[in-house]
Amino acid sequence: MQNALNTTASSKWVCVALNDLQQLKALQGTFNEAPYKQPPTQPVLYFKPRNTWNVDGATIDAPVGEPLVVGASIAVIIERECCRVSADQALDYVVGYRLLHDFSLPEQSYYRPDIKGKCLDGSAPLSEAQLAVTAIDTPNSLVVTTDVNGVRVAEQSVSQLHRNINTLIEAVSHIMTLQPGDLIAVGFPGERIALQPGDQVKSEIVGHIALTNSVGELSA
Amino acid sequence: MQNALNTTASSKWVCVALNDLQQLKALQGTFNEAPYKQPPTQPVLYFKPRNTWNVDGATIDAPVGEPLVVGASIAVIIERECCRVSADQALDYVVGYRLLHDFSLPEQSYYRPDIKGKCLDGSAPLSEAQLAVTAIDTPNSLVVTTDVNGVRVAEQSVSQLHRNINTLIEAVSHIMTLQPGDLIAVGFPGERIALQPGDQVKSEIVGHIALTNSVGELSA
Repeated sequence: MQNALNTTASSKWVCVALNDLQQLKALQGTFNEAPYKQPPTQPVLYFKPRNTWNVDGATIDAPVGEPLVVGASIAVIIERECCRVSADQALDYVVGYRLLHDFSLPEQSYYRPDIKGKCLDGSAPLSEAQLAVTAIDTPNSLVVTTDVNGVRVAEQSVSQLHRNINTLIEAVSHIMTLQPGDLIAVGFPGERIALQPGDQVKSEIVGHIALTNSVGELSA
Repeated sequence: MQNALNTTASSKWVCVALNDLQQLKALQGTFNEAPYKQPPTQPVLYFKPRNTWNVDGATIDAPVGEPLVVGASIAVIIERECCRVSADQALDYVVGYRLLHDFSLPEQSYYRPDIKGKCLDGSAPLSEAQLAVTAIDTPNSLVVTTDVNGVRVAEQSVSQLHRNINTLIEAVSHIMTLQPGDLIAVGFPGERIALQPGDQVKSEIVGHIALTNSVGELSA
């Protein structure tokens, strides 16, 4: 592990929605309805802008009367400028892996995550700890678990994602140039976890990194 | 005018879509169809991340075979942290106004601008020139014009927007905290302008600021 790269300088934090293979299969019927009438052909992306950036140990305040949910994802940290690279070159542009919690309001639509639900202040805690890319031979078999108040509520391997780490870096780097310190949160379990004020959320890249946050009490 | 604030450090650039009152009225029928079945109740926002940031005079390269379009907007530059402010206090948080070109691929959907179309590298040139907030008594009557190759193709007053500058700052600051150097592009004419390689695009905040960009030749 290393704490080398400062991702809180001038980065973009890109999250990938709808990358859980099981969820995708379950949604096939919905995808064929209006207005799109087909499943998404590109990765479904959203940003966590800097007002959302937060740290391990932070308490996240839920807006009054809104049902907060959370998901955990491996965050791939980009080391150097990365534009239109191929999947087999992709890891050459990565410095390491961190763990991200994405706190948000529940989605109304599966196609394009909405800004209001995804951009709550402080809603994107990122582990300070970083797993060096050189320490892991097979990142696509890393496993992420999430416990709420000590109870296991999610477990997902990167191998259960529709697009794996290499394929995502290829796809995203064809949509926009990735820059040093940028990150891609590669995928969340399809079912986000509903939270209550006071809940403790602990996720792990199993065997490597932990990230712990709590939900604040209601505030105006 | 002043060139004080450096917005290219660690900012978020928030653009407001669907804020042209005339366009909104024309789209009422579409809004009532699936999946939403009602007009948007919140401002429709999208981000221009840092790979899109660009400058006055820059040439923007169109992706091969893709139809590039452009719109111009006043960009409100935030001076200090701005969280849940009211419309009548909103201008206290603004340092000035700049001019933004948003080059993009044409929209397929009006509800949530898609990441691929909006995040082309270098697609968000911002004027270096900045009109001080103190120099303008009535920002909501500023007018933006756009010429392509010397021909007027768009003209819009802030007064033709559904939500004006004050109302937008109120709404956006309730969705996410705005930080020093952040900007809000308050609204574009509903009809984006289709461009060809080699076109010259010049926009003005009439009487104050100009911004000129050109479209590059096709590249792979």
